Amino acid sequence: MRFSPLQNDVFLRACMGLATPYTPIWLMRQAGRYLPEYRKTRARAGSFMGLATNTDYATEVTLQPLERYGLDAAILFSDILTVPDAMGLGLSFHLGEGPRFSAPVRDEAAVKALRVPDLEKLRYVFDAVTSIRKALNGKVPLIGFSGSPWTLACYMVEGAGSDDYRLVKTMLYSRPDLMHRMLQVNADAVAAYLNAQIDAGAQAVMIFDSWGGVLADGAFQQFSLAYTARVLAQLKRDHDGAVVPRIVFTKGGAPWLQEMGDLDCQVLGLDWTANLGRARALVGDRKALQGNLDPNVLFAPPAQIEAEAVKVLDSFGAPHQGEGTGATHVFNLGHGISQHTPPEHVQVLVDAVHTHSRRLRTA
Amino acid sequence: MRFSPLQNDVFLRACMGLATPYTPIWLMRQAGRYLPEYRKTRARAGSFMGLATNTDYATEVTLQPLERYGLDAAILFSDILTVPDAMGLGLSFHLGEGPRFSAPVRDEAAVKALRVPDLEKLRYVFDAVTSIRKALNGKVPLIGFSGSPWTLACYMVEGAGSDDYRLVKTMLYSRPDLMHRMLQVNADAVAAYLNAQIDAGAQAVMIFDSWGGVLADGAFQQFSLAYTARVLAQLKRDHDGAVVPRIVFTKGGAPWLQEMGDLDCQVLGLDWTANLGRARALVGDRKALQGNLDPNVLFAPPAQIEAEAVKVLDSFGAPHQGEGTGATHVFNLGHGISQHTPPEHVQVLVDAVHTHSRRLRTA
Repeated sequence: MRFSPLQNDVFLRACMGLATPYTPIWLMRQAGRYLPEYRKTRARAGSFMGLATNTDYATEVTLQPLERYGLDAAILFSDILTVPDAMGLGLSFHLGEGPRFSAPVRDEAAVKALRVPDLEKLRYVFDAVTSIRKALNGKVPLIGFSGSPWTLACYMVEGAGSDDYRLVKTMLYSRPDLMHRMLQVNADAVAAYLNAQIDAGAQAVMIFDSWGGVLADGAFQQFSLAYTARVLAQLKRDHDGAVVPRIVFTKGGAPWLQEMGDLDCQVLGLDWTANLGRARALVGDRKALQGNLDPNVLFAPPAQIEAEAVKVLDSFGAPHQGEGTGATHVFNLGHGISQHTPPEHVQVLVDAVHTHSRRLRTA
Repeated sequence: MRFSPLQNDVFLRACMGLATPYTPIWLMRQAGRYLPEYRKTRARAGSFMGLATNTDYATEVTLQPLERYGLDAAILFSDILTVPDAMGLGLSFHLGEGPRFSAPVRDEAAVKALRVPDLEKLRYVFDAVTSIRKALNGKVPLIGFSGSPWTLACYMVEGAGSDDYRLVKTMLYSRPDLMHRMLQVNADAVAAYLNAQIDAGAQAVMIFDSWGGVLADGAFQQFSLAYTARVLAQLKRDHDGAVVPRIVFTKGGAPWLQEMGDLDCQVLGLDWTANLGRARALVGDRKALQGNLDPNVLFAPPAQIEAEAVKVLDSFGAPHQGEGTGATHVFNLGHGISQHTPPEHVQVLVDAVHTHSRRLRTA
């Protein structure tokens, strides 16, 4: 056993469908720009990739939100585009513009040249996982993550963010054979990447299908869901004697909840458009649900934040209690926290979730 | 009777749930930048608002796609932001940036100053409706439209497009009283605006809730759906002895189809994330369905466009035939057509929809 024993297993228990004394909470992008201490570290690192590729910096910023708030999990500080970067696409970040690839994948030759990258190129990520796990010292579990094969493909073809996904969808509809080939490579690369994170110490893994929701019905199942399933099929089920829960989050995935219920994972992440009660009725016997507060709620005054947190908890309904497995809830935002969020509002949210969810269990 | 008798009533019959010899098709933003003749007229007009506010230009561009394609309806050429412009918010369009308001509504004083605008300020729209209806000469019916109260509020508070809706959602969560007040004014203004379009000659009306899908579950029902319902309750049911069908389109509305099924309208517009067969099972006994091809399909070669059009028609299922009302389908895109669309690909789509939907009726 390389690592200290876990002191707070509430998140992992909820992922496994086991009863917990309260509803665990963590926040997507919880280590981020809304925290002044993060901005200081980033300034020292010089750039976003300078931060993500340096083990000490990545460890430092991952732990920052846990020093402020009683969050129930940590998540590796990294980027969803590390894998295509390691494939040789040349990732860079331009101030105020988001990520960009210098060598986007737009034709047959570029697709056919794609390979699962040498994992040594991603060593900095696995080193960060081990370093963070050690620094956590058993306080809370550590979540590893990757972008989904489809979400990676969006960036790989577009070369940057997009508001219409014209290039990647043109390839999808015109040359589905090329798209399938790219997604196969991506899926196998993501699986190897997540398995290496598990080996390095990640206690749960999450697949971010941030752009699955831009696909048409039918195309989503074929080009996003099928390749998420291909990743899941290759993942290690446990490590060091502990089960490693698998979480799949599809932004805009509410229309396909039923199909996602068949994925071989323990947890489905939902954005704020989903109704947790309805989702529980559809898939709650098969999946724990993670979500789904609108991050913009955190701009409201404390009383409204509390009221909206209570609404989300109540929409899920009565907590699972007692022995055995049942429908469980992991509280989160429906998407990443905004850089403009007042840090003291996060404290209000964490307290509201812990307090009200304990109350629900004694009611 | 001021206008020529209607020669093609396939669209209106489908809206009313009546059988038709084939599935009618029209395209959101069918009069637009992808057409070279549109770009010529716009160049003469000098600007987008120069085009929209001039009766002759607006008539000319509305008819352009009908001269090329066998579309089954025309839609008024205008903008969804004409109503807040008439409220005094100062609409302008900056090249490559989209619309902007010089006086966004961001505090209590600004909200309390909002009034249903003098409809005389929107006379140019009603004049365009009458002019277009005359120029159509009964060829196909004319659809009038407006933005939904919530969608207008998004632009009114943000002052421009947004990718996180932070300002409008901050108002919604912090000061729901102000948001409700703004939405009431918007709803009454939209109702008056659409009724005046009906008086001027619009044969169907459509409410575009382009940003309804960014709301959280719960907030959507309270802040978007309720005010769309408030508009619908005030609309004229018929004009000149003919029923005027009401269409509601919510981009990203798939999670709330069940609730939208209760709206007092004949047609629900769906984006490409919805499955038409599932939607028909949920609400097809109460609503005609309009949609929902991904506009990006039009970048693929003709054979793929035909195949995807067939998929959408087949996903709706067997057409309603015979006497009385039943579940009907109006073919459309799931959102506006892209400015980059090759015009000849639209011909392929229209032909594919007409041909395959006739085939379905003889099968």
